[in-house]
Amino acid sequence: MPKETITPRAKDYSQWYLDIIAQAELADYAPVRGCMVIRPTGYAIWERIQAALDQRIKATGHSNAYFPLFIPWSFLMKEADHVEGFEPEVAVVTRGGGEELAEPLVVRPTSEAIIGHSFARWIHSWRDLPLLINQWANVVRWEMRPRLFLRTTEFLWQEGHTAHATEAEAEEETLRILNEVYFDFAEKEMALPVVRGRKTENEKFAGALRTYCIEAMMQDGRALQAGTSHNLGQNFARAFDIKYQNAENVEDYVWTTSWGVSTRLIGALIMAHSDDEGLVCPPRLAPIQVVVVPIYKGDAERPRVLEAIDRIVSAWDGRFRVKIDDRDQMTPGFKFNEWESKGVPVRVEVGPRDIEKGTVALARRDVPGKEGKEFVPQEGLADRVAALLDDIQQSLYNRALQSRLERTRDVASYEELKEAIEGGWARAYWAGTSEDEDRIQQETRATIRAIPFDQPEAPGKCVLTGRETSQTVLFGRAY
Amino acid sequence: MPKETITPRAKDYSQWYLDIIAQAELADYAPVRGCMVIRPTGYAIWERIQAALDQRIKATGHSNAYFPLFIPWSFLMKEADHVEGFEPEVAVVTRGGGEELAEPLVVRPTSEAIIGHSFARWIHSWRDLPLLINQWANVVRWEMRPRLFLRTTEFLWQEGHTAHATEAEAEEETLRILNEVYFDFAEKEMALPVVRGRKTENEKFAGALRTYCIEAMMQDGRALQAGTSHNLGQNFARAFDIKYQNAENVEDYVWTTSWGVSTRLIGALIMAHSDDEGLVCPPRLAPIQVVVVPIYKGDAERPRVLEAIDRIVSAWDGRFRVKIDDRDQMTPGFKFNEWESKGVPVRVEVGPRDIEKGTVALARRDVPGKEGKEFVPQEGLADRVAALLDDIQQSLYNRALQSRLERTRDVASYEELKEAIEGGWARAYWAGTSEDEDRIQQETRATIRAIPFDQPEAPGKCVLTGRETSQTVLFGRAY
Repeated sequence: MPKETITPRAKDYSQWYLDIIAQAELADYAPVRGCMVIRPTGYAIWERIQAALDQRIKATGHSNAYFPLFIPWSFLMKEADHVEGFEPEVAVVTRGGGEELAEPLVVRPTSEAIIGHSFARWIHSWRDLPLLINQWANVVRWEMRPRLFLRTTEFLWQEGHTAHATEAEAEEETLRILNEVYFDFAEKEMALPVVRGRKTENEKFAGALRTYCIEAMMQDGRALQAGTSHNLGQNFARAFDIKYQNAENVEDYVWTTSWGVSTRLIGALIMAHSDDEGLVCPPRLAPIQVVVVPIYKGDAERPRVLEAIDRIVSAWDGRFRVKIDDRDQMTPGFKFNEWESKGVPVRVEVGPRDIEKGTVALARRDVPGKEGKEFVPQEGLADRVAALLDDIQQSLYNRALQSRLERTRDVASYEELKEAIEGGWARAYWAGTSEDEDRIQQETRATIRAIPFDQPEAPGKCVLTGRETSQTVLFGRAY
Repeated sequence: MPKETITPRAKDYSQWYLDIIAQAELADYAPVRGCMVIRPTGYAIWERIQAALDQRIKATGHSNAYFPLFIPWSFLMKEADHVEGFEPEVAVVTRGGGEELAEPLVVRPTSEAIIGHSFARWIHSWRDLPLLINQWANVVRWEMRPRLFLRTTEFLWQEGHTAHATEAEAEEETLRILNEVYFDFAEKEMALPVVRGRKTENEKFAGALRTYCIEAMMQDGRALQAGTSHNLGQNFARAFDIKYQNAENVEDYVWTTSWGVSTRLIGALIMAHSDDEGLVCPPRLAPIQVVVVPIYKGDAERPRVLEAIDRIVSAWDGRFRVKIDDRDQMTPGFKFNEWESKGVPVRVEVGPRDIEKGTVALARRDVPGKEGKEFVPQEGLADRVAALLDDIQQSLYNRALQSRLERTRDVASYEELKEAIEGGWARAYWAGTSEDEDRIQQETRATIRAIPFDQPEAPGKCVLTGRETSQTVLFGRAY
């Protein structure tokens, strides 16, 4: 494991990110431009993300289903804003079964259009509402500046699509997903502190009435949009003729929502927590939570040490996801480095002297080196490991939150804003127009990441126009 | 629930199949020719199939990963037999990001070509072997005669891809998957008796050395290929230059395998077990195993009955997947019909008289009507339900096996063969050529479904050529 090839964050943050992915064997670029191969370790993290989200999606009353990969070109054209947003990014199938197709098929960039068609068939009366559907799928958006996990032409995601009888119910659903599914998942499972808020008109989903988001700050101070939830109003219901009869037998269009998170969450996980030694994975999402490394010299000590490890691990009774690294060709030091670069939260070392003394060495990944390692009794080890995993999960969260708070500055002038976004986010009073927003983006490469739900009590002066306003926004450069 | 719209099997088997799917709300045809929408009930069955397979795939040492949807045209062309087999069926992306592509991209019909590229990058020495990978994904094969679940242009599947140091290890893997994963899954989870065997040269996978399969018989006597496992020899290793250095530092091509099962298993499940009342789902794969229907008249009785049901179901302590159907607008009879057509294995009815007597009515889906219904004490109900679910699972298996045995005839002449395949399978000694096989297919629409692992002790005469041979095969018409 050529560990020294991880570029330090301070030297080149972009290269550091790619080195982490390569060392931890999370993903590869594919031979198709912009596409990636998700390797077993990366995919195992995705499986845990899926399980944690799926459980929350089902607990809030949604059912999974599956809709076609291909969308007839004419369907995509039905909602004007939607097609404007996605047409430049789509991949198009023009040949199938050896023939030119009469109508080209779009490889789904998102599924509002094809799901709208089904909703129109399934929904007839108020009894059919709400209709709460989720899909796990791959989607394709042609990517000019690909970056593993963060921006890939093909990515994996879940997309929820729901229909409701009233605008209020649709709004409630949109916010429930943001709060009970995405926020809860990000903070508890990913140890990722996120800001909840609304997107501006410039940044909202193509075809939505309102878009809500969770935004996270990475270690370099840039923003990463971790999840979005859209209130689509009646826009798609009109485009796809999704009507229902209410209890008074009056026909009306339904109100729909959509919401999604994707494999870019793996990019967020990497960038939020990792260090110059490699990946740091929050315990709740780590495919391997504890690696046990035997320490021995020669064939004489080996069986005794492995036997002790077997005894110790059996006593854990499946409480943790454990890997015993009993490979005989590698040195312990080599193994330490390998599992460190792969982000395993806890390492247990057992050698002959530990056996004599009834101890083990216990090392925590989030505090590398000697500082994070202690010798502890074998007795009560399971409870100690469980507590350590919880502590690591919480520490990662605290560290990321602390960093975000330190790097978020209240700014009162455009000059201060420009300065603040060099190293983090700028919180500013804002009463500007869409054009003002565009101008700031052109001049600074920063955008309004969110209008946070948390707003100050007192009004203030817009950072650009000086107009008094009660609204603050967060500016930042985004991934 | 307009139950009477299920066409009886005896009248029109094809229409019966489609009616079952419509009534149970398993799937819809999509607006894209040959594609389907898998509705929540159908997808819930697929999730259970996935979980049961995934557990076996991981238990045999495989890791999940994910590879790109798009395959460069030139990659597909690298293995001659492979491209010949798949080229006529592929969908081709020729435009992306608003431009014509220099090289067209094939939407994966299967992933040997794109995974071969990664294997060549990942494998260097014998230490990297065996490499055992699985992928859950969607694939596309242009379908001229689509049929829900059985043949759709897009379908969901798992595809395993492995690389080994020796031919023997690749062969062992190919058979392990057939036996420990596919056969075990089909028989235990799907209650589907299957014949294990090898495919003839005519029927094997495009690019394989040997293809093994599990074949099931449907209620109309036709065969359904439920899973295949391919020993690919060094064909793909040569095409994609997948080499390794052995322990003696000599370079050689690896030996690869691939294997898959798909959403067509849902079609097999439907056709193997269902009846004229609707879907019959084996308990182990049923999304809902027990439905509880309250019986009451008016608002006075309702709360008492629902309270009793709550008490009964709480005592089950999560042992079963339960649905309490407390909808107030529908009659019990309507609910019985609905859950029957949706295939729920066990129904529990609770009314005021049951509460007085401490009983419930217990009905089993596989024996419709009064015959399958009994009144039993509430005491010990959980154990009784558990036993009933096991009994239903076993009965479905037995019934399907019995039917297959009755419908499989040993035939000694071509005339007998033609007769036998009208209602089932023909087992025949076979020493014919590929051309003979083609001729029989043209004349009878039957193919050799498998050369079963179970072979007779004594030799016999080939059903077509009269030549003596020790090999028997199974002929049948296939889905």
